[in-house]
Amino acid sequence: MAENYAAVLHGPYDIRIENCPVPEINDDEVLVKMDCVGICGTDVKLYTTGACGIEAVTEPTIIGHEGAGVVVKIGSNVTSLAVGDRVSIEPTQPCRSCEYCKVGRYNLCVAPHYCSTVGASGNLCRYYKHVADFCHKMPDNLTMEEGAAVQPLAIAMHACNRAGIKLGQRVLILGAGPIGILCAMTARAMGASKILITDVVQSRLDTARELGADYALLVKRDYSDEEVVDGIVAQLGCQPDVTIDACGYASVQRVAMLVTKTAGVVLVVGIGDNKVELPLSQALIREVDVRGSYRIVNTYPPAIAAVSSGAIALKKFITHHFPLEKTKEALELAKSGNAMKIIIHVQS
Amino acid sequence: MAENYAAVLHGPYDIRIENCPVPEINDDEVLVKMDCVGICGTDVKLYTTGACGIEAVTEPTIIGHEGAGVVVKIGSNVTSLAVGDRVSIEPTQPCRSCEYCKVGRYNLCVAPHYCSTVGASGNLCRYYKHVADFCHKMPDNLTMEEGAAVQPLAIAMHACNRAGIKLGQRVLILGAGPIGILCAMTARAMGASKILITDVVQSRLDTARELGADYALLVKRDYSDEEVVDGIVAQLGCQPDVTIDACGYASVQRVAMLVTKTAGVVLVVGIGDNKVELPLSQALIREVDVRGSYRIVNTYPPAIAAVSSGAIALKKFITHHFPLEKTKEALELAKSGNAMKIIIHVQS
Amino acid sequence: MAENYAAVLHGPYDIRIENCPVPEINDDEVLVKMDCVGICGTDVKLYTTGACGIEAVTEPTIIGHEGAGVVVKIGSNVTSLAVGDRVSIEPTQPCRSCEYCKVGRYNLCVAPHYCSTVGASGNLCRYYKHVADFCHKMPDNLTMEEGAAVQPLAIAMHACNRAGIKLGQRVLILGAGPIGILCAMTARAMGASKILITDVVQSRLDTARELGADYALLVKRDYSDEEVVDGIVAQLGCQPDVTIDACGYASVQRVAMLVTKTAGVVLVVGIGDNKVELPLSQALIREVDVRGSYRIVNTYPPAIAAVSSGAIALKKFITHHFPLEKTKEALELAKSGNAMKIIIHVQS
Amino acid sequence: MAENYAAVLHGPYDIRIENCPVPEINDDEVLVKMDCVGICGTDVKLYTTGACGIEAVTEPTIIGHEGAGVVVKIGSNVTSLAVGDRVSIEPTQPCRSCEYCKVGRYNLCVAPHYCSTVGASGNLCRYYKHVADFCHKMPDNLTMEEGAAVQPLAIAMHACNRAGIKLGQRVLILGAGPIGILCAMTARAMGASKILITDVVQSRLDTARELGADYALLVKRDYSDEEVVDGIVAQLGCQPDVTIDACGYASVQRVAMLVTKTAGVVLVVGIGDNKVELPLSQALIREVDVRGSYRIVNTYPPAIAAVSSGAIALKKFITHHFPLEKTKEALELAKSGNAMKIIIHVQS
Repeated sequence: MAENYAAVLHGPYDIRIENCPVPEINDDEVLVKMDCVGICGTDVKLYTTGACGIEAVTEPTIIGHEGAGVVVKIGSNVTSLAVGDRVSIEPTQPCRSCEYCKVGRYNLCVAPHYCSTVGASGNLCRYYKHVADFCHKMPDNLTMEEGAAVQPLAIAMHACNRAGIKLGQRVLILGAGPIGILCAMTARAMGASKILITDVVQSRLDTARELGADYALLVKRDYSDEEVVDGIVAQLGCQPDVTIDACGYASVQRVAMLVTKTAGVVLVVGIGDNKVELPLSQALIREVDVRGSYRIVNTYPPAIAAVSSGAIALKKFITHHFPLEKTKEALELAKSGNAMKIIIHVQS
Repeated sequence: MAENYAAVLHGPYDIRIENCPVPEINDDEVLVKMDCVGICGTDVKLYTTGACGIEAVTEPTIIGHEGAGVVVKIGSNVTSLAVGDRVSIEPTQPCRSCEYCKVGRYNLCVAPHYCSTVGASGNLCRYYKHVADFCHKMPDNLTMEEGAAVQPLAIAMHACNRAGIKLGQRVLILGAGPIGILCAMTARAMGASKILITDVVQSRLDTARELGADYALLVKRDYSDEEVVDGIVAQLGCQPDVTIDACGYASVQRVAMLVTKTAGVVLVVGIGDNKVELPLSQALIREVDVRGSYRIVNTYPPAIAAVSSGAIALKKFITHHFPLEKTKEALELAKSGNAMKIIIHVQS
Repeated sequence: MAENYAAVLHGPYDIRIENCPVPEINDDEVLVKMDCVGICGTDVKLYTTGACGIEAVTEPTIIGHEGAGVVVKIGSNVTSLAVGDRVSIEPTQPCRSCEYCKVGRYNLCVAPHYCSTVGASGNLCRYYKHVADFCHKMPDNLTMEEGAAVQPLAIAMHACNRAGIKLGQRVLILGAGPIGILCAMTARAMGASKILITDVVQSRLDTARELGADYALLVKRDYSDEEVVDGIVAQLGCQPDVTIDACGYASVQRVAMLVTKTAGVVLVVGIGDNKVELPLSQALIREVDVRGSYRIVNTYPPAIAAVSSGAIALKKFITHHFPLEKTKEALELAKSGNAMKIIIHVQS
Repeated sequence: MAENYAAVLHGPYDIRIENCPVPEINDDEVLVKMDCVGICGTDVKLYTTGACGIEAVTEPTIIGHEGAGVVVKIGSNVTSLAVGDRVSIEPTQPCRSCEYCKVGRYNLCVAPHYCSTVGASGNLCRYYKHVADFCHKMPDNLTMEEGAAVQPLAIAMHACNRAGIKLGQRVLILGAGPIGILCAMTARAMGASKILITDVVQSRLDTARELGADYALLVKRDYSDEEVVDGIVAQLGCQPDVTIDACGYASVQRVAMLVTKTAGVVLVVGIGDNKVELPLSQALIREVDVRGSYRIVNTYPPAIAAVSSGAIALKKFITHHFPLEKTKEALELAKSGNAMKIIIHVQS
C-alpha cells in the first residue's frame, strides 16, 4: 500500500499527478483501492475554471467523484463490507441529522461532504477512504468501468424518479449529453414507450439513438421556440407526458414549458441559467408541474440492480479510456465534447 | 315558474336585467330556483372588458358561476337529488370522456361547459338548469350565502390540495384577495401551524388576519425582492414550507421562488403574467416544486363538509349583499376592490 | 352486415352459437365488427357454474370481454374514431357521475356496465356495439390477437400500478396463471430487476420463465408457510420489495405477508378467499402495505403503448386459436388449465 | 448535578427508585435534566410482565420514553441546542445508515436504540443523555407536561399520516384509549369533518367526545360484526373514508375491513393480534388499503407545531400527576385503565 498517486488540481488547467499520503480510516469507513474513475462535466468545469457551483478551489484538491474500486481495509464498526469487496462509491457523506437527511432527502443535506467540493477529497487517486454505507457492493456481473459509471446513472435515475416516469409514457429529453442520454436509457428501463431526444450536435443524437432514444431532433440555433415545439410534436406524434431538460438553457426551458402535455411534468436536472424569461404561466395553467432534481438520493442500489439485470446497457455508454497519468489529456478530450464517457484507470 | 330575470352582459359595462326563458332540462339535469350568487374577479373582468381568458363575449351572456338554490324539477334519470333539495352548484359540466376526465382531473377537460364561458350560461338568474351530479346537496346547517361562496372555497381548496399542505407546516400566501384569504382559511383547516399573508393594501391584510392568517406583511411597491424575502422570513421565523401565489404577478413569483424552503412547494393559483423573468433555477436546484392549480376538481364535497363541520368559517368571508336588480352596483363595488365577497340575492 | 353469430350461455355448460340481431348504436357508440376475443378464467367460471362473482346468469347471455375488431359504424357524436379503425375494447361503461368515476377510479364505479355481467352484453360475437371512448384505437403494429389480449394485460398493469413497482425492485409473483404471468411481464417492463414466480404446476412455471420471470419456484401442496418463505428468499437472494398474489388462496396470502420486505407492498389481484386466518400483524408492524386491485382503470392506453413499443411481448402469451363455432371446445381447454391464452376468431 | 434518581425495573411489579450515575455524554449528545415523563401502555406491560414485544428485561432497566426536560450540558459537536433549552425527547436513536434510515423511514431502522428496550436506557430519571438531534427544542408556549405528551401525539400523528387523512373526510377510530383519542385530535387538526370513536367503556368515550370526537359508539362485547358496522354507519351517516384501529383485536380489524368505504384506508396503529381470521378480501376487492404504522418518524416537529399553534389541545389530554417516588402508584393507576395520561414529575 505504498504509493497513492492522485490527480490534484492546483488551479485552472493546472492538474498534477502527485503522490499523496494514503488516508487513515475511522471506525465507520473503508479504504478503497480505486480502479476506475469517470470524468464528468463538473470535473471539466473545475479543471478549466478552478471553481464549480459557488465554490472555488483555494487549495490543491483531488478531483473525481465517479469511482469504483476494491475494499482493502475496513473500520472496526463496519459490518456491511469485507476486504475484497468490489464497490461503487456514492460520492457523498451527508450529515445524517438535518431535517432533509431525516426525511430521506439527503441530497438536500445542509452540510454534506461531497467529493471534490470544499472539505471533501475526490477519488481520482489510488487509495481513497469513504464511509462504508455509501460504498455499494457490486454484483459479480458488473465491471469496474460500469461501477464508475453508476454515478452519472444514479444522477439520471434520480431525475427520472423526480419526473415520475411511468410505463407507456412519451418522454422528451432536451440535450443529448451524458446525463440526457442516461435519462433516455433510464426512461426506457422504466417503461417509457416513446423517447425523443434533441440536441444541437448531430453526432450526439446519433449516439443517443444507438443507446435508447427512439427519435432524435436536431435543433438549429436560429429556430424559434415554436419551430422546436412543432418539430417535437411532429416527430413524437403527440406532446410529451414528461420533458427532461438536461441542458439548463433558457431557450430549452421555454420549449419545455410550451411543449409538455397538460398535466405533465417538466424536470430540470442540474443547474440552469439564473434569471430567465419564461412562459411559466403557460405550463402552470395546464397543471404541468415544474421540478428540479439535485444530485443523487437513494438511486445507487436501483442503478446497480438495473445494470446487473441488463435493463440498462451501461457498457455502451463508456467510450474512452485513459491511464491516471493521462488525466490532463482525458480532461481536454472531455472539454472538446467529443466523448460520451471517459474512464480513468487509476492503477495503470 | 313564470319569470326568469337574469343578469345579461351585452358588452363592456353593459349589464342588463332581462327576462329570459326558463330553461328546459334533459334527463340528467335539474332545474334550480337560484337563491344566492357570488360576484368574483372573473365577473368583474367580463363586465369591464367583455372578455375573460381567451374568450370574448360575442353575444349576450348570463354571467355568474358562484350559485346556490333549490331544486324545483328533476330529469328522469336523476336519482341523487329530489325536488326541494338545497344545492350548491359546481359551475362546470366536463365531457367525461377525454383522458383528463377519465383520470379524475376533469378541471383539465378538453371540452368543458363552464358557466358564463362561450356556450355555457351563467347562473346569475332566477332559474338555471344544470347537470345533476354537479349540483351538490347542502347540509341543513349551510346557508344559501355559504352555498354560493363554496365555489371560491373549492378553488382555494384545489390550490391547497395541489400545494400538498400538511399538518404543522408554515405557509406563505402572497395576495390577500378573496382567493388568497380562502387559501389561508383552508391551509388553517388542513393544519398549517403558521400562516403569513402579504398584500399591498393594508385593509385586505386586516381582513386576512381576522379570517385566519397569523401574520400579515404589507409590501410596498418599491421593495426589492430581497426586502420582501427578508420581511417574510423575519415575521414567520423561518422560510415557508409552502408558498401560494394568489396574485400571478412576476414580482410575486420571483419572491415565491426565492423565499420558499428547500424541498418546499410554490403553488400558483389562477393565471399569471405571461412571459416573465424568473429565478427559476434557484427554486429547482433546491427541489422546490413549482405547480399551478386550475379551477376546481373534486373539492366541492370536502369544501361543503369543512364549512358544515365548522372547520372553515365561510360566513365571515361574506361581506356585502345586493338584490338582482342592483347587479351593476355590485359589479362596480367589486371592481373597486373594497369588498371581500358580494352576494346577489336573485329572488329579491 | 347480415348475420351476427354469438356465443350465448344459457346455463352451466350450455353454450350455443346463435344468430342474434345486430345491435343498434346510439350517438356516443360505435359498432365493431369483432375479430378476436380471448377466453379468460371468468368465462370458464360462467361456463361451468352459470355465475360469476355475486351474479348468476338468469337469462341467455353473450359471453366474452377480451375483444378487438374493426369499427364499421359510428354514432353522430363520435369524433375520436372513424369507420375502419382497428380497436381494442375496454369491456366496461362506467356511470361517469359517481364519486369514484369523478376521481378517476372508474373501476370502482357504483353502477358500471361491464361486459357479460347482468345487463351488459359480452363481445364474443360478430357485431358488438360499445361506447366510443372505451374503444381504443390500435397502432398498426398490433395484431388483432394482441388487441384482444390487451384486456388481461390491462388487468395486470393496474395491479402493478397499485403495487407501485419501481425500477430496480425485486418482485415476487404468487401464481403463474395468465394474470400472474402478465404481472411478471409488466413488472419487467416497469424495471423490476429480479422476478420470482411460484406455482404448484411445473409447466406453468416453465412458461413463466420463458415470458419474463427470472426465477421459478415449484411449491408442493404439503409445504409449510415457512418452507415456502425460505425457498423464495433462497432463490431471490433477498426478500421481495413487492409481492403480487395472483391466486387469492389463504395459504398464498399468508406467505405474502411473511415474506415481503419491511416497508414493501403485498398486492392481491382479483378476488381472494373470503374469511381467512392471516398473520396480518406481521406485515403491518413492518409497514408492509396490503392492497387489492380490481378490474381496470386507465391502463388500456399504456398497455397498448407497451405492446406497440416492444416493452411487452404479448404475442408469446397467446397460445391457442379456435373459430367461433368451437367456443365450447375452447372453454373446455381453458377449463383444463393447459392453455395460457386462447383466442376465438369470431369471423372464421 | 449530584444525584440521579431513576425508576428502575428489576422484574415484574418490581420497580425501584434508585440513585444511578449521571450519564457521560459524547460529542453528539446532550445531557437533559428531566422534568416530566409520561406513563404509557408499554410501561405498564413492562411493569406487569417484565417484557415488551419480543424482548424481556434481563437486567435492571430504567423505564420511561415520554420525556421532556432542560438541556444542562452539550457535546462538542452540538450546534442545534444550547444549555438552558427546553426539549421534548424523541425516544430513539436510529442507526442512520441502513436502507430504511436513508429513505427517511427511520422508525423501521434495523438497529435502533429505542428508550427502555434492550440496550437503551429509559428516561424516567433525573438526568438523561440523548443524541442532540432527537431532542426537539420546545417553543415557549409549551409546558413541560405537554412536552412529555408530545411522544404519544407523535405516534398518533404518524398513524394519521400513514392513513392519509384529508380535509373533509369522515374518520372512524376504533378504541378510545390514549392513542385512539390522540388520533381523533390529530384527525380533527388535519381537517376531518366527522369523527366517530368506539370503545367498550363509556367513560373513555365521554373523554373522547370532550377531546375531539363528534360521535361515540359504545360497543357491547356480544355485538356481532354486522351490528357494529350498522351502528357506525347509522351514527356517522355514511361509511368512513378512513378507519383507524387503535386496539389491535381481531374483532376490531374485521369491523374495519367491512365498514370502511370503497377506496378508503384501514390503518392499524401498533401491534395487533397475531394470527386472526379476517374478511380481508372484502376490503381489498373494494381497493380499501390496509396499512400499519410503527412508532414515530418525523412527526415530532409537526406535533410540537400543532400544539404550539393551538390546533391540538394537548393539555386536556393530561389527567394525572405524580412525583418520581410514586412511580409505582402511577403504574398501578395506569394499569387500572382509569387514567388518560399520567405525568411523573421527576424533580419533585
